[in-house]
Amino acid sequence: MTSLKEVGEFGLIERLQRICESSHPKPEEIALGIGDDAAIWRPREGHEIVMTCDTQVAERHFLSAFLQEERWATLLGERCATVNISDIAAMGAQPKVALVSLGLPSTVPVEIIEALYRGMAATFGRVDTHISGGNVTQTAGPLFVDITLLGDIKRGHSIQRSGAQVGDIIGVIGDIGASAAGLSMLLAREEAAWNALALAELDPLEQAYIRPTAYLQAGQDLVGTAHAMIDISDGLLSDLGHILRASGMGARLYEDRLPSGHALRRWATHQGISLIDALFAPSDDYCLLFCISPQDKPAVQARMQQQDLTIHWIGEIRDPSEGFLLERTDTSIQALQAKGWQHF
Amino acid sequence: MTSLKEVGEFGLIERLQRICESSHPKPEEIALGIGDDAAIWRPREGHEIVMTCDTQVAERHFLSAFLQEERWATLLGERCATVNISDIAAMGAQPKVALVSLGLPSTVPVEIIEALYRGMAATFGRVDTHISGGNVTQTAGPLFVDITLLGDIKRGHSIQRSGAQVGDIIGVIGDIGASAAGLSMLLAREEAAWNALALAELDPLEQAYIRPTAYLQAGQDLVGTAHAMIDISDGLLSDLGHILRASGMGARLYEDRLPSGHALRRWATHQGISLIDALFAPSDDYCLLFCISPQDKPAVQARMQQQDLTIHWIGEIRDPSEGFLLERTDTSIQALQAKGWQHF
Repeated sequence: MTSLKEVGEFGLIERLQRICESSHPKPEEIALGIGDDAAIWRPREGHEIVMTCDTQVAERHFLSAFLQEERWATLLGERCATVNISDIAAMGAQPKVALVSLGLPSTVPVEIIEALYRGMAATFGRVDTHISGGNVTQTAGPLFVDITLLGDIKRGHSIQRSGAQVGDIIGVIGDIGASAAGLSMLLAREEAAWNALALAELDPLEQAYIRPTAYLQAGQDLVGTAHAMIDISDGLLSDLGHILRASGMGARLYEDRLPSGHALRRWATHQGISLIDALFAPSDDYCLLFCISPQDKPAVQARMQQQDLTIHWIGEIRDPSEGFLLERTDTSIQALQAKGWQHF
Repeated sequence: MTSLKEVGEFGLIERLQRICESSHPKPEEIALGIGDDAAIWRPREGHEIVMTCDTQVAERHFLSAFLQEERWATLLGERCATVNISDIAAMGAQPKVALVSLGLPSTVPVEIIEALYRGMAATFGRVDTHISGGNVTQTAGPLFVDITLLGDIKRGHSIQRSGAQVGDIIGVIGDIGASAAGLSMLLAREEAAWNALALAELDPLEQAYIRPTAYLQAGQDLVGTAHAMIDISDGLLSDLGHILRASGMGARLYEDRLPSGHALRRWATHQGISLIDALFAPSDDYCLLFCISPQDKPAVQARMQQQDLTIHWIGEIRDPSEGFLLERTDTSIQALQAKGWQHF
């Protein structure tokens, strides 16, 4: 028998994809199957339904401390919703309908579950999305929240991972590396210490972990312009790696173009690691990463400025023969590996 | 704080439904929200998407013994798919697209996961449904499988729980009570004993538990005829109770019209319980329960006979003032309670 560790998350997904496709060939109305931020179904001519699902397990995807108090449970609910909205955003689509499955230990109080739900419902409500169904069940294990989110988009408009082209410039919106740093800061505190604070009293990195942003409007604004897009849920290198693999491309990043937020820089110094290691660490930041033609840069830049969003143009797509490289500030070249969060 | 046990599954669902609806009023394009076998979304004029999701947790919804060997894992995968197909069948819809979320303990071998997936993919494939996406994650708790299944139906054609009318007769297709009896038989054996057997060597009740049927064609054939329909996933009384509550109706069942399968009768005798207690016990049989006008009985009967399906006409819908009653063979009357499987 083979262990999960041996094959890893993506190895497992590839095996499962093979099983699905060999046992039932992908019908024509499935425009996009396993292997992107979301799948696409065309039940009728002219429009497409974009589908994603995501499971968050206590102690694995979030700290159990979030289940100790209603206000933290609400923040957790917001986070669970945001994570899914981010996947739909990364397709350029509009979320519409959510289904929520909860796996509940018998000890979790109903008020905590309600608080969790309030956070989800409010966050979905803000993007005009309704929780229309789901499932509740008991589990002997840690609490889990599994959300399926369905979105809508005009046929052919979705932005997938596979469209990056040689010469495209790579843009990122959001704070790379902030979430992982914030989580490690929370873990370094006494639980009772941070649990008692207001969100605003926490470090910006901790806030980034607790309350990520889904760049929904930005994702939709890139429809028709971006050739490829993904949300960073595992880490910059891993998720850009998904685009490179799906598009059959290489890329070059530039150290001096990477974002260098004050908070992350300070944290890295404190940890005794380089800023670049902090930026490249596995982190679920829900940044939007996209590839556009250089000629579209001014228009995209202007559109995002209207939303007060900053884009970091971190590199460009290259011929696959060039590999995946980082050009350091001293012009030396370093090979990159598309590693991210180890799921197993 | 309130315990889950105090409010129960349906109490919890009602609370969560209230939260969802107060934080974001159900938009017009959500034709049916929380509280039926599936929800309904109308993204465009003219057709509807039927959505359901269901979580199966090891040791809670299935025996962990199913994860010990590939052939049992495949049967488990078939069962997980069937449970969801049954929900779509109970709306009269056609399943189309599945999303599968797996929560995996680190110790489960990849071959077992693949076998599980083969079972799901094959069962979905048989009803022309493609697994188009999903999620895999690790959990420190028991393995879980959460499936979201989307189906398609013409606008207004879905059969919901709320349409039962006074005078309707109540039909059931499938073996009521068989699954719970089969599970208790398996639990009474040594695991090593049944694990070594071929499926065909097991008792028909055990087979009913392991390999339930989803009555998809039957469900679709009842579109335009059935006023209300549900699949029995908790037990006859509980699930008929859902129809009565949603429709605002009462009902009378007749002891002498209830199915009395040979295997279940023998099992009940062996357990020292009455057949009726065995029939009314909480059981996830995935029988189809529906309400039609008496004048449609011959046509429905004929249609189901073509599929070799037997219908038991177990009673009729009555005015709500009459309550929920059983007429015994000796013509005495007994009040019924809509109790089913205790989820919490």
